[in-house]
Amino acid sequence: MKPVNIGILGLGTVGKGAVDVLQNNAAEISRRLGRDVNVFMVSTRNAEKGCRICPPQTLITEDPFEVVQHPEVDIVVELFGGTDIAKKLVLTAIEHGKHVVTANKKLLAEYGNEIFALAEQKNVMVQFEAAVAGGIPIIKALREGLAANNIQSIAGIINGTSNFILTEMREKGSAFADVLKQAQALGYAEADPTFDIEGHDAGHKITIMSALAFGTPVNFDACYLEGISKLDSRDIKYAEELGYRIKLLGITRKSAKGIELRVHPTLIPESRLIANVNGVMNAVRVDADMVGETLYYGAGAGALPTASAVVADIIDISRLITADTGNRVPHLAFQPSQVKPQNMLPMDEISSSYYLRVEADDKPGVLGQIANLLAKEGVSIEALIQKGVIDKTIAEIVILTHSTVEKHIKAAIAAIEALESVARPVVMIRMESMHGRNG
Amino acid sequence: MKPVNIGILGLGTVGKGAVDVLQNNAAEISRRLGRDVNVFMVSTRNAEKGCRICPPQTLITEDPFEVVQHPEVDIVVELFGGTDIAKKLVLTAIEHGKHVVTANKKLLAEYGNEIFALAEQKNVMVQFEAAVAGGIPIIKALREGLAANNIQSIAGIINGTSNFILTEMREKGSAFADVLKQAQALGYAEADPTFDIEGHDAGHKITIMSALAFGTPVNFDACYLEGISKLDSRDIKYAEELGYRIKLLGITRKSAKGIELRVHPTLIPESRLIANVNGVMNAVRVDADMVGETLYYGAGAGALPTASAVVADIIDISRLITADTGNRVPHLAFQPSQVKPQNMLPMDEISSSYYLRVEADDKPGVLGQIANLLAKEGVSIEALIQKGVIDKTIAEIVILTHSTVEKHIKAAIAAIEALESVARPVVMIRMESMHGRNG
Repeated sequence: MKPVNIGILGLGTVGKGAVDVLQNNAAEISRRLGRDVNVFMVSTRNAEKGCRICPPQTLITEDPFEVVQHPEVDIVVELFGGTDIAKKLVLTAIEHGKHVVTANKKLLAEYGNEIFALAEQKNVMVQFEAAVAGGIPIIKALREGLAANNIQSIAGIINGTSNFILTEMREKGSAFADVLKQAQALGYAEADPTFDIEGHDAGHKITIMSALAFGTPVNFDACYLEGISKLDSRDIKYAEELGYRIKLLGITRKSAKGIELRVHPTLIPESRLIANVNGVMNAVRVDADMVGETLYYGAGAGALPTASAVVADIIDISRLITADTGNRVPHLAFQPSQVKPQNMLPMDEISSSYYLRVEADDKPGVLGQIANLLAKEGVSIEALIQKGVIDKTIAEIVILTHSTVEKHIKAAIAAIEALESVARPVVMIRMESMHGRNG
Repeated sequence: MKPVNIGILGLGTVGKGAVDVLQNNAAEISRRLGRDVNVFMVSTRNAEKGCRICPPQTLITEDPFEVVQHPEVDIVVELFGGTDIAKKLVLTAIEHGKHVVTANKKLLAEYGNEIFALAEQKNVMVQFEAAVAGGIPIIKALREGLAANNIQSIAGIINGTSNFILTEMREKGSAFADVLKQAQALGYAEADPTFDIEGHDAGHKITIMSALAFGTPVNFDACYLEGISKLDSRDIKYAEELGYRIKLLGITRKSAKGIELRVHPTLIPESRLIANVNGVMNAVRVDADMVGETLYYGAGAGALPTASAVVADIIDISRLITADTGNRVPHLAFQPSQVKPQNMLPMDEISSSYYLRVEADDKPGVLGQIANLLAKEGVSIEALIQKGVIDKTIAEIVILTHSTVEKHIKAAIAAIEALESVARPVVMIRMESMHGRNG
């Protein structure tokens, strides 16, 4: 069969990684695919670098729009980044009948509906395995491997930077700011780390997975984002004493009331497999009605792991180019006519258990007052522990609640903070039990 | 699009599960696939049961050969079991141009080459996600998700019965025979448990994964099998004291010397994720050159998890029925012309670290003798610990070795057993470090 021609936009870390994978494993890829993958054209701001990295026959250009319109290009690989020019490039490529592979989670979480709609219209495929959890084939699992299931919930450690920071904070008891500096020195965190540590990156990824799981349009605006920058290492320590790890999770869940979509630090029982995913590694846990709990673990970032997913998408598209379009795997897992908006639950309506830390005057009666305020809102207490006294007069009280609706815990917290004996804001971290059928 | 007609052979646990999944999730499956899956015909020895379980329009027959030859059946789902009649049924189905879905690992590990060859000739697909690790989409990950990689090794906990027994032995310190009885009472082990506990079942599964990973024919005859029935709970305890868990692993690995293919109890450092997979759950760890380490976890057995994989295969085939055959995912991951036998390493040539337990007379000089015999065979010692004295005169010595070639450890063990002061056979259990790039 004739080689499939790809055009790559951008030769940054992942772009160079994709070229490396295609060259290093050319033989193995052809043995599987039955045809060669040819790096036909590449756009880069640095043509000299392009010539150094790419095979000799590759056309190098500084104009990415030349790539997306070139008649010989079968598949455009968008590794340009951002959402402004990248969006124009992807839409232009689709207009010109090109299939698209992208690792751009932000682009898809924010403009995916528009992109997929045009792709349906033009009968081309847009594949995005690399956009979520790097080299882990989680998009394939959600769209194909679990296709017989009603998916019920997804919870993922899907930001390596945050997971590295939380792992270090737990293992060394260090403060957030110190570990962040270390992560920046190691190249695990950007100079401006906001995108990673405030949950935006995880939010983009869980938004995409939520759409695939439940057959809804992508809806990043509905995603609640809470990062790890305000996390106190004391709470990591107290959680550990109670048998929990704190992880930044992206969570989406379907219930009778609607769909939950949220990113926040979360207590998980330490016996759960996902609680033991450390360092920069990623893992996604899926709960589905027939198969039960499955978990997918691997490198969530890095040039070669991400390129592994990009090239898997290239191989998939090469196989399906000649398939009749109605029989391809749909972009959002469900047939376009079946992708329907569903009620997105506001955070006040989600159900969760909670970890609370209250600093209160060390006086008789305060514990009782706090317990009463929780009871008044219908919040039942699993554990209430006085951790000790700080500054001689302030008692630290840690509370674990049973499951309740978030608006009730918020009302209780407001009431606790209004107590004369409570001077500082109450720390609140959500909990997930993650219990599978078989423990 | 017109519904796809399936014919199911056998209404045992998984057969009933498949019918249940197709009925319970019919709407969700059609939303994804864009057409209905129709349970057109079912063969069962108990027609009355068939009528009770299946949708009203399903044709029920007691003759499975009627199903595989029926002109209206598009896909045959072989859940008959065994290798005698099942093989005839699958080959007849293929002869009649039917696509086949099977959960029959024994059939594929022993007769896969013949079956896949006929399928290529007849241009039909044989899918077998349910044959390995139940509901975990590991076949899809190996054939498609990791297609950009040179796969280097696979290690899997792929027999739930054995993993349940090992988990109970560790947690409760019970003897193998007692836990086996308990597993039988719970329905986790068969009345004749040989197939599970002696490694045959895991051997079939790792044989299939090995072929997919390395592009070789299936070769169950080359698989080394060692089960858990001789495992002493003392060794589980000593391993734990040294920071290890013992798991029954299926292992396959490619090196310059050839391909390793083996099933045996294995020490794994307790910090590895796979060491923490407990009870009847399964997990498969894949090491590949570009993506690094990935791990896939979930239920490896059970009616609904297995049916989840069967139905995912039905959906895949329904999508690809109209694809030109050269562009389908190849049965053994690589194009048929590229599936080539490779040198299979005999066990004597594999490399591993080893746990040894020696019972020797509690006399001066014995430790030194043992250490010398190991050194003479070039085996270097990581740890050598005298655990204590049993029966007043016999010392128990536990040794961990660095990596060595198996024939050398066997020679050293033979020499140790020839010592006058050593009365009983040396216990030898292999070790795997399972270190990923990121720990």
